[in-house]
Amino acid sequence: MNNYTEYIGYLGSLLTSITFIPQVYKSWQSKSVGDLSVWMILIVITSTIVWLVYGFLIHSGPVILANFVVLALSLLLFYFKLTFKKS
Amino acid sequence: MNNYTEYIGYLGSLLTSITFIPQVYKSWQSKSVGDLSVWMILIVITSTIVWLVYGFLIHSGPVILANFVVLALSLLLFYFKLTFKKS
Repeated sequence: MNNYTEYIGYLGSLLTSITFIPQVYKSWQSKSVGDLSVWMILIVITSTIVWLVYGFLIHSGPVILANFVVLALSLLLFYFKLTFKKS
Repeated sequence: MNNYTEYIGYLGSLLTSITFIPQVYKSWQSKSVGDLSVWMILIVITSTIVWLVYGFLIHSGPVILANFVVLALSLLLFYFKLTFKKS
């Protein structure tokens, strides 16, 4: 894998890593998560765990990094979903 | 890459692909997307495009497949965000 490819991978990794930051911030500010799908959050948690395994197996730094961060943030969103629950 | 690794990759790919399906469904049903961060959606759109390039460069079927589906669904969520806009 050349450097060019690796840079693209790390750019994707960086972008994916920050994906949930605005959502976590918005949810934290508004304390409102009613429009968020809990299934989406649970699928994200499951998929990032699977991608982490895949990332380790193919030794892909970008895949590992991105999914580690997204897993942490999606766990936080899940916590918000439970805590800020309103009918 | 052995078969085992490839299966894990496709499992991650499948899970990532379906990530936004419950969110698109929920948003479509409720016509309410106020709690969704538009920045999250825009970052997802950008990141999936970058990951698609990366996927093609490293010839990773799982990466390409997952990001193609997520790109399509995040574009749909962005459309909802514009259409269902409420103050």
